[in-house]
Amino acid sequence: MMSIDEQVKIIRRGIVDLVSEEDLRKKLARDKPLNIKVGFDPTAPDLHLGHTVVIHKMRQFQEMGHNVTFLIGDFTGRIGDPSGKSKTRPPLTEEQVNKNAETYKEQVFKILDPAKTTVAFNSAWCGAFTPGDFLRLMSNCTVARMMERDDFAKRYRENSPISLHEFMYPLLQGYDSVALKADVEMGGTDQIFNLLMGRTLQSHYGLEPQCALTMPLLVGLDGEQKMSKSYGNYIGVAEAPADQFGKAMSISDELMWKWYELISVKSLEEIEDMRARVLGGSLHPKLVKEELAMEIVARYHGDEAALAAREGFNNVFKKGGIPEDAITYSIEEGENSCPVAILAATGLVPSRGEAKRKITAGSLKVNGEKHLDGFTPLPAGEYTLKYGKKGFVVLTVK
Amino acid sequence: MMSIDEQVKIIRRGIVDLVSEEDLRKKLARDKPLNIKVGFDPTAPDLHLGHTVVIHKMRQFQEMGHNVTFLIGDFTGRIGDPSGKSKTRPPLTEEQVNKNAETYKEQVFKILDPAKTTVAFNSAWCGAFTPGDFLRLMSNCTVARMMERDDFAKRYRENSPISLHEFMYPLLQGYDSVALKADVEMGGTDQIFNLLMGRTLQSHYGLEPQCALTMPLLVGLDGEQKMSKSYGNYIGVAEAPADQFGKAMSISDELMWKWYELISVKSLEEIEDMRARVLGGSLHPKLVKEELAMEIVARYHGDEAALAAREGFNNVFKKGGIPEDAITYSIEEGENSCPVAILAATGLVPSRGEAKRKITAGSLKVNGEKHLDGFTPLPAGEYTLKYGKKGFVVLTVK
Repeated sequence: MMSIDEQVKIIRRGIVDLVSEEDLRKKLARDKPLNIKVGFDPTAPDLHLGHTVVIHKMRQFQEMGHNVTFLIGDFTGRIGDPSGKSKTRPPLTEEQVNKNAETYKEQVFKILDPAKTTVAFNSAWCGAFTPGDFLRLMSNCTVARMMERDDFAKRYRENSPISLHEFMYPLLQGYDSVALKADVEMGGTDQIFNLLMGRTLQSHYGLEPQCALTMPLLVGLDGEQKMSKSYGNYIGVAEAPADQFGKAMSISDELMWKWYELISVKSLEEIEDMRARVLGGSLHPKLVKEELAMEIVARYHGDEAALAAREGFNNVFKKGGIPEDAITYSIEEGENSCPVAILAATGLVPSRGEAKRKITAGSLKVNGEKHLDGFTPLPAGEYTLKYGKKGFVVLTVK
Repeated sequence: MMSIDEQVKIIRRGIVDLVSEEDLRKKLARDKPLNIKVGFDPTAPDLHLGHTVVIHKMRQFQEMGHNVTFLIGDFTGRIGDPSGKSKTRPPLTEEQVNKNAETYKEQVFKILDPAKTTVAFNSAWCGAFTPGDFLRLMSNCTVARMMERDDFAKRYRENSPISLHEFMYPLLQGYDSVALKADVEMGGTDQIFNLLMGRTLQSHYGLEPQCALTMPLLVGLDGEQKMSKSYGNYIGVAEAPADQFGKAMSISDELMWKWYELISVKSLEEIEDMRARVLGGSLHPKLVKEELAMEIVARYHGDEAALAAREGFNNVFKKGGIPEDAITYSIEEGENSCPVAILAATGLVPSRGEAKRKITAGSLKVNGEKHLDGFTPLPAGEYTLKYGKKGFVVLTVK
């Protein structure tokens, strides 16, 4: 095993909170594998790279020889929210949960080592709770403590209803740490309250408190918002190689380094070395970005697919005489796939009005041909759009 | 069966809240026996007359042909409060609960008709709750609604901890009404929140909401405070006949009428008739009070014991030449059974200082003999104390 200092350095890579390093060092000093717990919601198995940040951290723990538990919160997931008073979540059937779990495994085992990963379901213990177990669990937390959670406090202040059973989610998540005897629990920064609840409950149940470790949200393709399906700024782990590659190539250099820190398996030393060479001018950043894009595609589709994606990507650019700063854009066929909408969406024009005028005036070429119709949607296919002298869009209409 | 108006008149006797009379009339109009539910805490089976107010109301329902359920809250009682963060209640064993239930029955069947009374334990359904049942129950109430309960609101405001499981008590009590399909639930005025919770939950579970009916607290012997063990102003249902009789005779005329309303089985018409005769001067209030005292003793010890208690009481007064407004006072042997303390406690002197001076000056007679020692406690026994010209105390030192 590595030294404690070496391990702490790796654990600290990219994280936000660690409560507390002192406790973590104490646990590492025992020289026994730690139990690392990460909980996943069984409702959303369709992962994008943002979800993989914490999974990469799990992998780092695995590589250092620790035990990793991928915990599926099927108990709370199956219950759903029968009151309909707060955000309603349809309850999942056992079948759906199992199906989602299989999808999860398929996706996360592209990062984690299956042989060193325990997959657990919290229904195993929560589902066996007696009424007495429930009351005992509840007796370990006060109303005031629960109301310290930001979202509860905010909703209470704003007279937005909080159903009592919502209080059970942090408690049950905390109890999971009791059941698993977790040494470390990880989650996003919005999970810090729940992670600390686990710490508290373990003490109440006579266990050594876990360390709480939070990971930042991955910033999406736009370089501004967190990666999210609803912002459309994501790379799905199940997306096609060409899409993954093209999207990864579209991010800024600055964001590229952050992605390396959070979702690459390269060591900190390798990354530091590349960065020094880019700064010194001996390495072109496009090559570094290609390497990141290759790593992403290779992880989810294999090395061959990664090579092919790079070749395809570069061919498109070479053939079209497309500059390296071309915008890669992908959209569903429909209303928004008309040229006016595309130019506005990619930010090449300040408004649809201007897009309309300039297209009418002959400023747009599609696949090398002048294109005067701004409003007819482009049908599914691959296109290169050239707008004025410098605007290039590599467009996929799905 | 009686008419609805007649029933409502009897139901309204002595009550504080009824939510709502309209609903109650609708239920009565169906001409089918109603389910009347009253919950009792399994920890306190040693009843005093204050506890019997609601039991007398149950008897009135029984006499009108309705079904009465005496519900023992053994589920919550057995759980207790394991956190020790709020007022701790030691959890009861099943054996203790059963023993207490027997004592309860013994005591309440002196008022209720056992043949028409169902005794139920809420562990029968609460103890069978699955985790899913628990969460469903909780989902039917919001945090804000729970915080409307006066004691929760007050404790939250004052940063006094509220354990989460305390929220389960109103919910479980409310669920009891679901399980019992209660038409009416009764309790003290401090129970109104919990009774209305039952109303709400029944709606959520697809049942017709129950009516909530609250009874006032019985004022104790002192005519001021609610009857309570801790104020010492109570008559226990298991107390000896002579004590019950003597204590009942010590209450004021005004309080006597209130007691008639709340804990006598006489009809409102009979009571009104007596009151008219007392006002008209044709009936001495002492006789009315004797009748109340007799009713109390007869209920808990039988008619013969009541007659004997009255005779004994009157003999003491006759022999001692004691006036009818003498104070009846009873105390445990010890520090407070010294004459100075007794005179101060009964209000015959404004202060212990004055009591001391007057006793030294020869103002006190005990059993007809001058008594100069103010500070030596009187040993167990019966005494008459005469202080000055008008102060009489019929004293029992236990």
